[in-house]
Amino acid sequence: MPHIALNSAEPGIRGLLRYRPETARPLSELTEVLLRGPSTLTRGERELIAAYVSALNDCIYCASSHSACAAAQLPGGMAVVEQVRADPGAAPVPAKLKALLQIAAAVRDNGHAVTAGHVAHARAAGATDVEIHDTILIAAMFCMFNRYVDGLATIAPNDPALYAAGAQRLIAHGYLPPPADPAHHG
Amino acid sequence: MPHIALNSAEPGIRGLLRYRPETARPLSELTEVLLRGPSTLTRGERELIAAYVSALNDCIYCASSHSACAAAQLPGGMAVVEQVRADPGAAPVPAKLKALLQIAAAVRDNGHAVTAGHVAHARAAGATDVEIHDTILIAAMFCMFNRYVDGLATIAPNDPALYAAGAQRLIAHGYLPPPADPAHHG
Repeated sequence: MPHIALNSAEPGIRGLLRYRPETARPLSELTEVLLRGPSTLTRGERELIAAYVSALNDCIYCASSHSACAAAQLPGGMAVVEQVRADPGAAPVPAKLKALLQIAAAVRDNGHAVTAGHVAHARAAGATDVEIHDTILIAAMFCMFNRYVDGLATIAPNDPALYAAGAQRLIAHGYLPPPADPAHHG
Repeated sequence: MPHIALNSAEPGIRGLLRYRPETARPLSELTEVLLRGPSTLTRGERELIAAYVSALNDCIYCASSHSACAAAQLPGGMAVVEQVRADPGAAPVPAKLKALLQIAAAVRDNGHAVTAGHVAHARAAGATDVEIHDTILIAAMFCMFNRYVDGLATIAPNDPALYAAGAQRLIAHGYLPPPADPAHHG
C-alpha cells in the first residue's frame, strides 16, 4: 500500500504523476527527451539502460516496465534484456552498449564511481561524448525514479502482460501526458 | 577535469545545463517547482533537504551550492545547515523537519529503506502527505543530480564566496534559464 493517499489506483510512477501534475510535467518531458528524443542511441538501447539500472536498484515496477519497452524495441527481444540483467558482460550486445552499461552501473553506485577508465573504454568502443553524457543522465534519472516509486511504496503489479501492454502504449504515444481532452483518457 | 568536452568552463551542474539544453529545460523546471514552487515547506527547508542529501552523497558542488541557498533562507543561517549536515537528530530544527530529513536519508540509501514507521513519525510531527511526497521526490532528485554532476566529473570550486554569490542569484532569479535575450546574460 502506498505510504500516502494517492488520488487514483494507478500503479508505480503512474499514480505519482497523477497525484502531483506540477512535477509530472517536467518529469515526463525529461523522460521523453532522454529515452525517445533524437539520439544516436536507439530507443531500445536507452530503454535497456533504464531497465538495467532499475533492476540493480530492485525497483520492480520500473524494471518490469522498461524491460518490456526494451524488449519490444531491441532485435533480441526479452531474451537479450534478461541476459543483460543477469550478466551484461556476457550478453550478446555490441561492445559500445556493453561499455555504456558498465558506466550506468557505476553511476547507480555513486557518481564518483565513474572513472576515466570507464569513459576511455566506452570511447574506444565508439561511444560519443553525447552518448556518454546521456547514458550517465539516464542512469542518474532512474536512480531518481526508482527511489520515488519505491520510497512512496507504490504498487507494482505482477502480471508481465500488463507491462507489455503498457510498453505498447508508451511506444505508440510516448511519455508526455495526453492533451487535456476527456476523449484521450481511459 | 570533466570526462567529456563541455562547451563552457562553468562548474558543476551549470556546465551540464549549458551543454545539453534539451535536458536542461525539464531539469530546471523540476527544480523550480520542487524547491521554489508553492509549498507549505519553506524554500529554506527544501534547500536544506537538498543540501543534506547532496552532502550524504559526497557531491561537493551540489552540497555547497544548496547549503548556501539554505543558509541564506533559514533563520539559523549556515550554523544550522552545518549542524544538520553533521547530525540532523541533534540540530536545532523543528521536529517535523527532523522527521522529513530522516525520510530523505532513507531515500538516499534506497527507496525501499523508507518505512511506514518513518512516514508515521513524520505525520505525527505534523507533516502532510504532500510534504512527505515532496521530501521523497526532492531527495530522489538530488540522488539524480549528484550522480549527474559527479558521474561526469564536473568541476567544484573551493571558494565559499562563489557559492554564496550563486545562492543570491538563485534566490533572486530562480532555477529557470533566463529568457534568450543577450541583455540577460553575464
